[in-house]
This record gives sequence, C-alpha cells and structure tokens, in this order.
Amino acid sequence: MRMALGISYNGQGYDGWQSQPSGNTVQDKLEGALAQFSAQLDPVTTLCAGRTDAGVHGLNQVVHFDTDLQREAFSWVRGTNTFLPPDIAVQWARAVPDEFHSRASAIARRYAYVLLESPVRPSVEHGRAGWVFRPLDADAMRAAVQHLLGEHDFTSFRASSCQAKTPVKTMTRIEIARRGPYWRFEFEANAFLHHMIRNIMGCLVAVGQGLHEPDWMAAVRDARSRDAAAPTFSPDGLYFVGPVYDARWNLPAETPLYHWLP
Amino acid sequence: MRMALGISYNGQGYDGWQSQPSGNTVQDKLEGALAQFSAQLDPVTTLCAGRTDAGVHGLNQVVHFDTDLQREAFSWVRGTNTFLPPDIAVQWARAVPDEFHSRASAIARRYAYVLLESPVRPSVEHGRAGWVFRPLDADAMRAAVQHLLGEHDFTSFRASSCQAKTPVKTMTRIEIARRGPYWRFEFEANAFLHHMIRNIMGCLVAVGQGLHEPDWMAAVRDARSRDAAAPTFSPDGLYFVGPVYDARWNLPAETPLYHWLP
Repeated sequence: MRMALGISYNGQGYDGWQSQPSGNTVQDKLEGALAQFSAQLDPVTTLCAGRTDAGVHGLNQVVHFDTDLQREAFSWVRGTNTFLPPDIAVQWARAVPDEFHSRASAIARRYAYVLLESPVRPSVEHGRAGWVFRPLDADAMRAAVQHLLGEHDFTSFRASSCQAKTPVKTMTRIEIARRGPYWRFEFEANAFLHHMIRNIMGCLVAVGQGLHEPDWMAAVRDARSRDAAAPTFSPDGLYFVGPVYDARWNLPAETPLYHWLP
Repeated sequence: MRMALGISYNGQGYDGWQSQPSGNTVQDKLEGALAQFSAQLDPVTTLCAGRTDAGVHGLNQVVHFDTDLQREAFSWVRGTNTFLPPDIAVQWARAVPDEFHSRASAIARRYAYVLLESPVRPSVEHGRAGWVFRPLDADAMRAAVQHLLGEHDFTSFRASSCQAKTPVKTMTRIEIARRGPYWRFEFEANAFLHHMIRNIMGCLVAVGQGLHEPDWMAAVRDARSRDAAAPTFSPDGLYFVGPVYDARWNLPAETPLYHWLP
C-alpha cells in the first residue's frame, strides 16, 4: 500500500531535507520515526516533493512510501508525531494509488519568502525571516518580477551544484504582499532550480532598494550566467509551502501553518 | 544619564528574564552586552517593566539604567545588538528623565497569548504557540472574560510563588481574535500576578471546550483559591507585548514584532 504524508518543519536545526551521514536531516528524523511507529527493523524509505536546503522550512512537504502496515490515516499522523522532534510534525496522512508519486505527480511547487524590513535585525523570529534594513519599493519589485513570469531559462539564478536536467522552468505566479514591516513573497512554478528563489530574492532586494532598475531583472535573466545576478540571499525566511497536485489525488493543498506567516 | 531600551526576545532558550546564577537569562545576556558595548568592567544593572518566566517571549520589554556614557540613541541599539545572541535584540533606545522608571512608571501592561487549535501539535512554531486539539467556542470564551474585566481580587489565578503586594488588579481589556487555526488572546491590566495569564488561559480553554459554562469563570474568581481554577497553561504561546506609559515619556508603544503574531 502506498501512503502519502504532509510534513511541516522548522529547518533551523537541520542539515536540510535529504538524508545524510550526520543523521541530522528532516528525512532522517521522519524515516526514523516511521520505522519506530511501524515497528520495523529496516528503515522506511520516503520520497519527497521538493528537497529543501539547510535552514529552509517546510509547511506542506509531501512524501510517499510503500508499506504493508494497515493503520487508519490519523493513526499514522499521531503515531509518527510521537517519535518526531517537536519542530517536525506530520500534518496529514492518506492512502494513495500506486501511481501517485510525491515528486513526479507534482504539477507545480509553491514557496514563500518572509522578509523583515527594519533598522533592527530579527530576534523572536530569528532564523524564520530574512532581513533588510533599507526600505524596499513595492512597485519596483512588482515591475521586476514581471520579467520572471512565464517560461524562461533560469540559469542566472541556478546554483553550480544544481542537478536539474534543464534550467528552463515556467514561473506561473509571483505575489508580493506586506504586513507591517514584514514582506511576503510567494512563488509558484512547475519546478525550481537549486537556490533559485534565494538568488531571485537577492536580485529583488537589489531592485527594491534602488540599486538597479526593474528592467535589470530581464538583463540578469538573459545573461544566463550566475555572475550576472546578486548574491544568494539568506535561507532564513524561505518556506516550502508545498507541491500542487491534480485534484484527482484528493490531497490537502495547505496546512494550518500557512496562517502563521505574516 | 538615564537610558530606556525596548527589548524583544524569544524566550525558548532562556531561564526567564531575571538574572540567575546560571547566567542563562535575558537580563544576564542584555547586561553582558551593555557592559561590552560600554566597555565597562562592572556589569550594567537594568530594571525591567515586567519579569517574564522561562519560555515566555518579549516583544517590547522596557528596561532603564543609568550611565555616564554619551552615545547617540541608535548607537546603543546597534552596538548592544552586536553583543546579543540572535534571538534577543534591542529595538529602540531613548534618553529619559531621571524620574522615569521602567516598572514604576508603567500604568499598564499588555500580554498576548497565541494558541493553535489543530489536531496536530505545533512544529514550525514550536515553543511560540500554545496548543489545543479540541475546537474552541469564541462566544463562550468572550462571555467568560467579561467576569475578569474591572477591578478584582485575582487570587484564584495567582501562583503560590507570587510576590505581589496585593492580588487586587484592574483588567482593562481582553480581546479574542482568530486567524485561520490560530487564536490570539490579548490582555491589558494595570499589573499582573505571577502565572496570572497562564492560569486564566487554562480556565478559558476549559470554557472554550465546553467543560464549564462561561459563568464558571465568575465562580473561580470569587473562590479566591488557586484550587478553584484550571491547571496552569503552557508558557509557549505567551508574549509580553509591553508596558504602557504616559505619553509624556514619548516611548515607542509597539515594535515591528507585533505584526509577526497571527
């Protein structure tokens, strides 16, 4: 039987999503908890919708795995959470058809970046919000992101370590909202390259602070060179909101945590 | 010269506000940073508007201290923050008249409690939100808090360790708001007893979940006995929003962090 789970986590204390020898990754913690819950000696292997880097948070990361264990859906949630650290939680569990694949079935992914604009650095929200001390211009940033919508070669925003087969991705939505001194940037694309949002954020902040005109974003994009873009922005404010699936899978698209973001 | 500072902090990693032999309190960290910034061998002694317990957060804690050091206000902010841990920050600094006293001059205090209502415990917001898994009834809770407004003997909501001279306090405002699955409770009173809000929260949750009628809150209040109330609720979701001062002191009443709360 194939199970899908929605996972939320605070990435501050972990070496990213993907399993590592350190054992200190979200995947390691999740698979360890699943093995304990299902009382299996062999570790359970999960596949996720989008691997996140060290320090990046997850609101509705989706994984799937195959199991012989028959349990009610919420029993998977409650039982696995018993064995997870307090900053990682299974939000939901569903039995899914064998054709479902957390990564391959995802038709889009959503990320959010939360940014504090203040003369003073974050404190209570340390590690969960990026920071700029110079004011940002919303109109300039909204003009700049127009150059990123649609299908483009995003090589300029791609980390050298990126293993994606192609740098061509389709960005379907970018929204910029503000609540008090907190900015929230939302991105939706069919897929993202490694460091793509952090590199876009670096460029957006440069435009927002007037270091470049909005059209500079098109020039960066067209350069197809990492050297053309601004430095990679901090992971602190980056949240994997989650994958988007076809409605036929009937999976939750959002978790309560989304309301926590400013 | 007397200086006032506004301090924000995530209380998760600290043994409360007040200085202790452990050295692991917000006051210890602040006074250490002030000593480093002012390059004094003797520690700087600060007095605060409201001591917070272990695990309780501060948005606009206000302290004052006396110093011979002449620096521009924002230099105190930036300089002290250099020596503070990343989850504590000075938000503002002001030179104040010698008659100003962070505690004695406060005419009221404001606290907020953030509570997640969800079948699943907190994860990303671990340590910064309380949690209930049974749904809460807003009308019942709003009816219950009417019994707490005005001047009352709050002995029933007072910890045995409380050192206040009198249990009679005046509650001027309680607001209950909701954003998605997050509840925010706001309290304003001239002063609060030790554990008073956490004890009130325990009772409010009991009413909200239908374990007691709203009028039970009046019975608990009138019993003037800690035994009459519900257990002390978790510190996780408790935020000291800050003191209220007369406008003549011209001090910031709020910090950007207030917008972070759901």
